[in-house]
Amino acid sequence: MLKTYKKLKLVNKTRKKTQTIINVNGSKNKIQIGGENLAIIAGPCAVESEKQLDKIAKELSKLGVKILRGGAYKPRTSPYDFQGLEEKGLKILKKVATKYDMTTVTEIMDPRDVKLVSSYTDILQIGARNMQNFPLLKEVGHTKKTVILKRGMGSTIEEFLSAAEYILAEGNPNVILCERGIRTFEDSARNTLSLATIPTVKQLSHLPIIVDPSHGTGEIDLIIPMSKAGIACGADGLMIEVHTDPRHALSDGEQSLLPKEFAKLMKEIAPIVEAVNRKF
Amino acid sequence: MLKTYKKLKLVNKTRKKTQTIINVNGSKNKIQIGGENLAIIAGPCAVESEKQLDKIAKELSKLGVKILRGGAYKPRTSPYDFQGLEEKGLKILKKVATKYDMTTVTEIMDPRDVKLVSSYTDILQIGARNMQNFPLLKEVGHTKKTVILKRGMGSTIEEFLSAAEYILAEGNPNVILCERGIRTFEDSARNTLSLATIPTVKQLSHLPIIVDPSHGTGEIDLIIPMSKAGIACGADGLMIEVHTDPRHALSDGEQSLLPKEFAKLMKEIAPIVEAVNRKF
Amino acid sequence: MLKTYKKLKLVNKTRKKTQTIINVNGSKNKIQIGGENLAIIAGPCAVESEKQLDKIAKELSKLGVKILRGGAYKPRTSPYDFQGLEEKGLKILKKVATKYDMTTVTEIMDPRDVKLVSSYTDILQIGARNMQNFPLLKEVGHTKKTVILKRGMGSTIEEFLSAAEYILAEGNPNVILCERGIRTFEDSARNTLSLATIPTVKQLSHLPIIVDPSHGTGEIDLIIPMSKAGIACGADGLMIEVHTDPRHALSDGEQSLLPKEFAKLMKEIAPIVEAVNRKF
Amino acid sequence: MLKTYKKLKLVNKTRKKTQTIINVNGSKNKIQIGGENLAIIAGPCAVESEKQLDKIAKELSKLGVKILRGGAYKPRTSPYDFQGLEEKGLKILKKVATKYDMTTVTEIMDPRDVKLVSSYTDILQIGARNMQNFPLLKEVGHTKKTVILKRGMGSTIEEFLSAAEYILAEGNPNVILCERGIRTFEDSARNTLSLATIPTVKQLSHLPIIVDPSHGTGEIDLIIPMSKAGIACGADGLMIEVHTDPRHALSDGEQSLLPKEFAKLMKEIAPIVEAVNRKF
Repeated sequence: MLKTYKKLKLVNKTRKKTQTIINVNGSKNKIQIGGENLAIIAGPCAVESEKQLDKIAKELSKLGVKILRGGAYKPRTSPYDFQGLEEKGLKILKKVATKYDMTTVTEIMDPRDVKLVSSYTDILQIGARNMQNFPLLKEVGHTKKTVILKRGMGSTIEEFLSAAEYILAEGNPNVILCERGIRTFEDSARNTLSLATIPTVKQLSHLPIIVDPSHGTGEIDLIIPMSKAGIACGADGLMIEVHTDPRHALSDGEQSLLPKEFAKLMKEIAPIVEAVNRKF
Repeated sequence: MLKTYKKLKLVNKTRKKTQTIINVNGSKNKIQIGGENLAIIAGPCAVESEKQLDKIAKELSKLGVKILRGGAYKPRTSPYDFQGLEEKGLKILKKVATKYDMTTVTEIMDPRDVKLVSSYTDILQIGARNMQNFPLLKEVGHTKKTVILKRGMGSTIEEFLSAAEYILAEGNPNVILCERGIRTFEDSARNTLSLATIPTVKQLSHLPIIVDPSHGTGEIDLIIPMSKAGIACGADGLMIEVHTDPRHALSDGEQSLLPKEFAKLMKEIAPIVEAVNRKF
Repeated sequence: MLKTYKKLKLVNKTRKKTQTIINVNGSKNKIQIGGENLAIIAGPCAVESEKQLDKIAKELSKLGVKILRGGAYKPRTSPYDFQGLEEKGLKILKKVATKYDMTTVTEIMDPRDVKLVSSYTDILQIGARNMQNFPLLKEVGHTKKTVILKRGMGSTIEEFLSAAEYILAEGNPNVILCERGIRTFEDSARNTLSLATIPTVKQLSHLPIIVDPSHGTGEIDLIIPMSKAGIACGADGLMIEVHTDPRHALSDGEQSLLPKEFAKLMKEIAPIVEAVNRKF
Repeated sequence: MLKTYKKLKLVNKTRKKTQTIINVNGSKNKIQIGGENLAIIAGPCAVESEKQLDKIAKELSKLGVKILRGGAYKPRTSPYDFQGLEEKGLKILKKVATKYDMTTVTEIMDPRDVKLVSSYTDILQIGARNMQNFPLLKEVGHTKKTVILKRGMGSTIEEFLSAAEYILAEGNPNVILCERGIRTFEDSARNTLSLATIPTVKQLSHLPIIVDPSHGTGEIDLIIPMSKAGIACGADGLMIEVHTDPRHALSDGEQSLLPKEFAKLMKEIAPIVEAVNRKF
């Protein structure tokens, strides 16, 4: 075990002993991820319309959220499901984020889209299905954009770190890892959120790591407790799906919190954030 | 999913809405599990000798631990590994616990041993390998002893609750569940500790549930962070392996904390315990 | 890997180079398992009544089946499901088998039942949930009865062989292994039948190994193809659930073949049996 | 389960009842996959040099192999491992295949490479890591090239069929599925080859499906038995890694057969091929 990890040159903690703190490029908010502050990323699974995103962003902004997520290119199991608004979605995301002074995250799936997507958003997200999409990893490695790299649902931690190494090896050190659950036989939730990934990554790497309890569980009732648990064991942030009308969401409605449920989350995690000596 | 669960009659939260608080039988310490107090169970994997157990119990006792674990019957993968001291081990456990005024937990594997083991210890533990050993579940169901039932490493949460139902159905309501990790493809730790089990069980059942991060990870460096995470998401207690000489332990040395490491654990979990409004 | 296996003394192929052929004790049929003949074990999941078993045994007998399975003690997930007819079931099994001149297999779960069950049946089966029920393994190890040991659904091949070692170490060499599927994320069938277990066991051990495609898939339509595959890669036999009225079976009806479906199986596997130079 | 599958329009057997037989485009060999003939695809993991590939192709050709595999773009866990010869590799593959009159298969990872790779090779392979690389699926869907789509190691059968639907939905009906093992807790082999996928796919879809026992097990000694098993349960072909110098192979040497081992495979599978009424 860890034979591959030992040969990595850039992600290893033995090579760089201090924890990496990422200053999100070009963000007026001066967002730092990996330091004292706990990063809160929230928003809908997909950008559906300006009206939808504005409504959600308004609520999130009031609750202190500074990083807005929203997908314009959606990796859907079926080709007949909503595939995202593409560039139109990126424009909406940028417009709404500007209005509420928020930093943006959106998923990218195609190496040919890196330039276009980078021109609209602050942080590029590589989803679980693309964790080992090596041409895409190399392409985002050629930029200086902050990248959130999600763990593949069938990938080991060693493969996860090796995927991050692909980005760093191309010259982009701004990588944030994200644990989002793995596939197991347990069928009471959509995925098994493996929180031991957090301290394991902290021992092996200097890169920040956040948790996505929305995809990591797929169950609304598990999101708050797993958010608390993730923070308690050292996560540098949370990524949460929020929607004002989950029942009519075009994707992942069943795991999206309402703004009032998200407000409850923010309130309930506060004592844990304090207990681990971090700030919002 | 949950088709079997819905037909259960005793473990379901819909049948009994208040959280069960277990008063450990016959314990002078008035131990309650499932209420405001966080239960801390600690001790070696196996009782090896009176000297060994005394040394460990002394240290644990100083740190405020009131429940001492120690195996007399050990379920070992190989028949050539140390199988436990059996009745001699039970006698040592009782003697040492009495000296330090501690409550005891020990594993039971054979339905024929229930009477004997019950005569020496306060809490009976049914290990992961025996979660669906139905004759054993029925036999402990005939007593009023507190039972810690560990989740099988290849068992679903629904099967876990159904196994508890076997005990309750025989007349013994004193069951504490224990999440101890499941088998997955992830090979950086011995098991994948599935903490979502805690809030899932809390939604489905009124029974208390604790976490065993020692078996749940098999990695010393993961025990403290996973203890914090378990408490943060609602666990009613922790079960931790502690040994004064892990390198020479007759079983599970590689995942046993030294007393000073365990003292660090107690210190580090304190702010989380407070943050979730519980007490030691 | 295989660190534990290497320390085993009796199951290893390096210790005993010739393939073990088991002569089933006391069987008038002179059943041999592990040699040139492919063993076919068939029957209902549970013995429900004399009438039910007689009907099934009659059909199987006509099709050339010499080993009849039928459970009298059933390990059921829920305590409220049919638990088996117990001794009454054993009596029916013996009576019916005698009538049709068949050898019998039945599951045993409790070490206290070994004597009783042994007095009625030819082969004792230890089910997946009890693969690491060490007191039970030791108890059947004290007899000379043929034992079918099923692989636990969350157990590795190394643990499987180590469990067999427990039986051999007590003095009983008559162990037949049985692959019956493992737990994975794949949800299109009840279990993932891992056929690589067959050649892996053949390399590591001299013990015979059979396949149970009924439990291994839980899907009627997969039983014939997986039977063929199992024989093709070296299995020494098959264990198949057959019922004349699956829709009203008291357990596992959804994966039981009708006698005519079983007849089709026998016909379809014949060319494969011949292709691997074996006989029925 | 199968909720997504039921909404698919093109891969379902209910939509097209006859089994699809694929005539590989532009191949002088008139290769058909999915019909009476069993397809044998063999060759090295990676094209390393003309000399290496020529040596291997010569041996395979003598053994009757008509489809040569060889990677020019290699998806490697670490960025520091051999990444393939890229276009130079494609040129070698074409040259050698022409010399021995063989049809070619090579992996493609980047949607930008579809044109280039298509100009050199007959069949495009999409690897396990890219099973849900939707832009890549769409791009190969715009061609009429035969595509071998490998199952992701953490993907369900339903997701596998949905990924194929992406290709068909863009207008390319020439898709061959390939089972290559999934990730499970079992650690005695690199993957768990789930052969039940073959009959399951045969029931759900009209598309051909082959088996890759080289990646599916990662163990030389398991390749022949699992090839037999795969054919016995209905696979339309095999994909096997062969190398004349596995110890010095630049990737996957440990699971590559020597030509003489491959010759043994061809000989040993012959009776099974006949038993299932197929031809080479």
